[in-house]
Amino acid sequence: MPGNSFGRRFVVTTFGESHGGALGVVIDGCPSGFDFPLATILAQLDRRRPGQSRLTTQRKEPDAPEVLSGIDPETGRTLGTPIAMIVRNKDARSEHYDDIARAYRPSHADYSYEARFGLRAVAGGGRSSARETVARVAAGALAEQLLAHLHGVEIVAWVESIDTHEALAVDRDAITRAQVDANDVRCPDPEMAEAMVGAIEAARKEGDSLGGVIRCAIRGVPAGWGAPVFAKLTAELAAAMMSLPATRAFEIGEGFGATTMRGSTHNDPFYMQGDRVRTRSNHSGGIQGGISNGERIDLRVAFKPTATIFKPQETVTPEGQSVSFQPRKGRHDPCVLPRAVPMVEAMAALVLVDHMLEAASARLEDLKR
Amino acid sequence: MPGNSFGRRFVVTTFGESHGGALGVVIDGCPSGFDFPLATILAQLDRRRPGQSRLTTQRKEPDAPEVLSGIDPETGRTLGTPIAMIVRNKDARSEHYDDIARAYRPSHADYSYEARFGLRAVAGGGRSSARETVARVAAGALAEQLLAHLHGVEIVAWVESIDTHEALAVDRDAITRAQVDANDVRCPDPEMAEAMVGAIEAARKEGDSLGGVIRCAIRGVPAGWGAPVFAKLTAELAAAMMSLPATRAFEIGEGFGATTMRGSTHNDPFYMQGDRVRTRSNHSGGIQGGISNGERIDLRVAFKPTATIFKPQETVTPEGQSVSFQPRKGRHDPCVLPRAVPMVEAMAALVLVDHMLEAASARLEDLKR
Amino acid sequence: MPGNSFGRRFVVTTFGESHGGALGVVIDGCPSGFDFPLATILAQLDRRRPGQSRLTTQRKEPDAPEVLSGIDPETGRTLGTPIAMIVRNKDARSEHYDDIARAYRPSHADYSYEARFGLRAVAGGGRSSARETVARVAAGALAEQLLAHLHGVEIVAWVESIDTHEALAVDRDAITRAQVDANDVRCPDPEMAEAMVGAIEAARKEGDSLGGVIRCAIRGVPAGWGAPVFAKLTAELAAAMMSLPATRAFEIGEGFGATTMRGSTHNDPFYMQGDRVRTRSNHSGGIQGGISNGERIDLRVAFKPTATIFKPQETVTPEGQSVSFQPRKGRHDPCVLPRAVPMVEAMAALVLVDHMLEAASARLEDLKR
Amino acid sequence: MPGNSFGRRFVVTTFGESHGGALGVVIDGCPSGFDFPLATILAQLDRRRPGQSRLTTQRKEPDAPEVLSGIDPETGRTLGTPIAMIVRNKDARSEHYDDIARAYRPSHADYSYEARFGLRAVAGGGRSSARETVARVAAGALAEQLLAHLHGVEIVAWVESIDTHEALAVDRDAITRAQVDANDVRCPDPEMAEAMVGAIEAARKEGDSLGGVIRCAIRGVPAGWGAPVFAKLTAELAAAMMSLPATRAFEIGEGFGATTMRGSTHNDPFYMQGDRVRTRSNHSGGIQGGISNGERIDLRVAFKPTATIFKPQETVTPEGQSVSFQPRKGRHDPCVLPRAVPMVEAMAALVLVDHMLEAASARLEDLKR
Repeated sequence: MPGNSFGRRFVVTTFGESHGGALGVVIDGCPSGFDFPLATILAQLDRRRPGQSRLTTQRKEPDAPEVLSGIDPETGRTLGTPIAMIVRNKDARSEHYDDIARAYRPSHADYSYEARFGLRAVAGGGRSSARETVARVAAGALAEQLLAHLHGVEIVAWVESIDTHEALAVDRDAITRAQVDANDVRCPDPEMAEAMVGAIEAARKEGDSLGGVIRCAIRGVPAGWGAPVFAKLTAELAAAMMSLPATRAFEIGEGFGATTMRGSTHNDPFYMQGDRVRTRSNHSGGIQGGISNGERIDLRVAFKPTATIFKPQETVTPEGQSVSFQPRKGRHDPCVLPRAVPMVEAMAALVLVDHMLEAASARLEDLKR
Repeated sequence: MPGNSFGRRFVVTTFGESHGGALGVVIDGCPSGFDFPLATILAQLDRRRPGQSRLTTQRKEPDAPEVLSGIDPETGRTLGTPIAMIVRNKDARSEHYDDIARAYRPSHADYSYEARFGLRAVAGGGRSSARETVARVAAGALAEQLLAHLHGVEIVAWVESIDTHEALAVDRDAITRAQVDANDVRCPDPEMAEAMVGAIEAARKEGDSLGGVIRCAIRGVPAGWGAPVFAKLTAELAAAMMSLPATRAFEIGEGFGATTMRGSTHNDPFYMQGDRVRTRSNHSGGIQGGISNGERIDLRVAFKPTATIFKPQETVTPEGQSVSFQPRKGRHDPCVLPRAVPMVEAMAALVLVDHMLEAASARLEDLKR
Repeated sequence: MPGNSFGRRFVVTTFGESHGGALGVVIDGCPSGFDFPLATILAQLDRRRPGQSRLTTQRKEPDAPEVLSGIDPETGRTLGTPIAMIVRNKDARSEHYDDIARAYRPSHADYSYEARFGLRAVAGGGRSSARETVARVAAGALAEQLLAHLHGVEIVAWVESIDTHEALAVDRDAITRAQVDANDVRCPDPEMAEAMVGAIEAARKEGDSLGGVIRCAIRGVPAGWGAPVFAKLTAELAAAMMSLPATRAFEIGEGFGATTMRGSTHNDPFYMQGDRVRTRSNHSGGIQGGISNGERIDLRVAFKPTATIFKPQETVTPEGQSVSFQPRKGRHDPCVLPRAVPMVEAMAALVLVDHMLEAASARLEDLKR
Repeated sequence: MPGNSFGRRFVVTTFGESHGGALGVVIDGCPSGFDFPLATILAQLDRRRPGQSRLTTQRKEPDAPEVLSGIDPETGRTLGTPIAMIVRNKDARSEHYDDIARAYRPSHADYSYEARFGLRAVAGGGRSSARETVARVAAGALAEQLLAHLHGVEIVAWVESIDTHEALAVDRDAITRAQVDANDVRCPDPEMAEAMVGAIEAARKEGDSLGGVIRCAIRGVPAGWGAPVFAKLTAELAAAMMSLPATRAFEIGEGFGATTMRGSTHNDPFYMQGDRVRTRSNHSGGIQGGISNGERIDLRVAFKPTATIFKPQETVTPEGQSVSFQPRKGRHDPCVLPRAVPMVEAMAALVLVDHMLEAASARLEDLKR
């Protein structure tokens, strides 16, 4: 498989450059008979959309997808056939893309992309754009609703830190998307949210950018999803998150914090809660040996500061000339974190739906009926 | 694809439970005509082997693989057909595996594995064992030699920290495997290595265990390997590392450190070094937009403290009884880090060889000859 | 992988029901830098289109695809990113589709499709429609041009028989598409073509339908494409052809005829033609042990008579009632053969381009540059 | 995926050259908890084995496989982990393999294989050997038992013709393997069987070889297995069969015979048999639109005459010299058909088990429990 598909059973293929005709996604492997959750898809796309608030880029993107196939027009249910959705690129190629033609923008994909494809990134580089995530968010929202409908799974992500501002007092067992969306920065700690907003505004004024951390809590995953070797939930969640633009690190459970704990403090004791096996602590983040243990899945993803800044930077042209580069003023996020929240949720859902489908026929007794 | 294969072009499939007849690997997609690097494979397997030093488990495993196919017996060259290697499990099922039959060991895969497969982990759980990595290390050593032969790629990993002891002053551009192997703990900072050895010995005496961080430097990867969306080098390296037992976090470049930097400090300025495009700094860790930029690839992997400890712990039996669990004294590592070094190198090589093969036919001109 | 993708390197995913919003295709794995052959694509789509002549269904389908991604709008070259094309379904769901709602049409997919997806075929069954092949023909035309550009491969298919009318005297080494298209039935033997036209007209008058055989000659494939086990060229060509609607049989070389030959008459002697290894005969049809030997590839595909006929037939309703079924007069081919010619060419091209890409990095020396 | 794996859910990877250390197979995706059917595997391997009768090659191969993984040694049940089996090559490289070194044997894979891999076929060419099918027959026997256990599926193949001797009066609804095995040639028509034996003996005396046709009847497949586009049952069965050595053609249902029928005679009328939808005739061979309709699946596979004959033949050496080639007297089948019967059954089982697993989670209601 070339690299534009994700998943083994619920296979998502995305296409489209950020400034070509359209972005799109094909989902192959969705079970038939499911009420297509268009409202959820639109809601998640809206959360991903730039221009939601003064904090994000002002670029206007009408992200309502057109559904081309896979849904019964009469019943609104999935047909079991590939579901294709496209989103037109209305916002045509504009002046600031001339920047790309002038020089390799530092810490963008311009140079590495050209080394890979032998082509300038102006047109094709759009695959490296965060706009490609429209397709994933749409597919992820469908996956999320399947998980919710069949197993009551809840996936909630939020901004845990921006720069050095870190929200710690969030109840991972109770936090809701409504609480996350209570402010523009999507940090459910109101005090910290205010500090983050201030930091983003300051960075924008300086023409600089900020990074941060998104945390995701996944509740309701039953024990027994995952696999013990290459398809560990941890491995596939890591790949999912690190395939998002600007990601630099991934943690499950205690993450790096586990490295300074002892076995005696990190191990999660088992106990019985009624007839259900539970753990007293959840340092494992809900995944042991690559397989869910029925506890809340906890993960974190680090995003670097946006590469686009409005300061002069040293770089070179494709012809090998040293130049000072500064983009023209345009519409760019000084911080992608708030908009990345639904992206993290989408990728988590895509991993989990795959394992839900796999677990459905894993044991001989699952096949007897 | 079920979950026991890794890679898209150089596809590695592993099989075998830790206490079944044999472990093995099949490698499909290795080009024909390459001198099979048996010595490198044996050397890496030896570095992975338990019982190398007093720091690791004393279990003796004769890990020399038998090559069943794929190599021309006359020339010693790869045939272009699947290469199968097996390693017999000589060290049969022993008393301490009775522990598993008694109760779910905390933070092992026992419970989640049983939830997945409907079977007790005694026999099958062996897929969750670190012993499965024998197969990967063998395959990875072959991949590494292909990378070295064709592109001069060098992959060197080492123990950067154990518990709170952290080696910082390592020259990532020059560090060699010989330097890494200069001490038992595989930390190339002699002073820190000594502290680490002390910490491991102390933990062993207490019946406790330690975690830590492995860092890996990859030199010589040309610009242009990788892909812009799901098959980003970052995503596939993350999946590769997080599929290793006991891993909890992954970082590329600055990792979490990037989240408190600004775009103006994190961006890597480009300059010309002769006719080669280089970056002044390497905060990106050699990968931009999922594609290599020709700089050193820097990554880090966090390992949790070993789950096996010799202290009483709360747990439950499969029948739902609460019990206090303490394993019988056996052969277990209080710290897996030193042995995990070749595992990290192997998984890095498997990701890179895939992208090397993909890059070889990515552009129209690559196909003209 | 679910079942809507084809290929391992040049991966084609199709989507769309025949009466939904649009049909489409995503091609992942096309090398960058190739002049997108829009004219060839349009030409092949036109040959596939219904309503080309009085022999085919009169349904009008404006099959010009919209290219959504993967092509540089400035240079018209492939970007190395997924190429998505869609074709709108202008011809909306019409009266004769009510037939499907009434009863399972004999020898259509209505019943088996419903058994598979649990849904009536009215909407979703459109995946079983020949209209889905629009997507394949578009992708195949791109593959064909890559093969032609890089290796001079020529793929020419034609109608060899309809009912009992069989064209034998066709020079497989010289036949061209222009010759094939010289008559409406796409049989390059003018006398037989006339008989075929007569047979089709007669069947149409009777409300009946006819089947036949398409032969395909593939010239210019170098020796060494293919694989010795599951990915044999023979196996993949068979799968490709048998995935087309209404196909019932596949032959390579002598096909069933080989079963009454002896080794001494079927074997193809080798000789040298200059410095090129050739065979005196070509009973093998250009493929030996699953790998091309440099001779012309010869294959044949059998198509059954169209299931739609305008005669009363016994069938049952979804509710289990026995009924006599006769479709309302509509637009249906009494014989799909002429339109299936470009489908066969497309599927052959998709198989070959995959092996062309695979052969490009199969040997160590291919990777040295 | 490189080309040594088959299947999408029950994935079979084979390895091993015919004269290397061992042949083997890894099966990934077998559900856990199934009694491993070792007796059936051994029985099918024994039917595949050369030297069963005077009709087949006298080469002795002790084909009992060693099971290396995936089976619980205590319960004999599948663990849900990869099942690896190997068969040692005891019969070492012998004198008649020197023939291969001398010249390209006509209609063997020697030349095309060398063109593909850049290596002489002496060692590696073993992948083209019928011996590779040991691995498939072992995997297929497991798949067959899963199908039988869960759905009562029965797969019976037999020799329908050798040369011009064709058995027609076989009751496809009742024929058993015991009846097939009643004679050495595996043709359940005793009179024809005698003629076939005579023909094979005569060919052997002449140093010549014969081809023929194997027919396979598959009973008990429920309606609804398969897929409407690329993963049609017809397409995958065709690929499966055409991946067997020496195959030249494939038919489903009426096959080429359908091309001279009319829609009115080929269509299968539906009727109700109790509450089950049945067809009056079965020209479709149990598959409509790529999906099973619950009727018996009928297929045929054509095998060419064995390439090895003991007559002088024109050929060339790798150095480009014209030579007359005649193999030394050795152990070769003048006709592979009798031994190919279990191979056809195995490949049919591998296709069907994949679709059984896929059908188990295809619809929303399948996932509710």
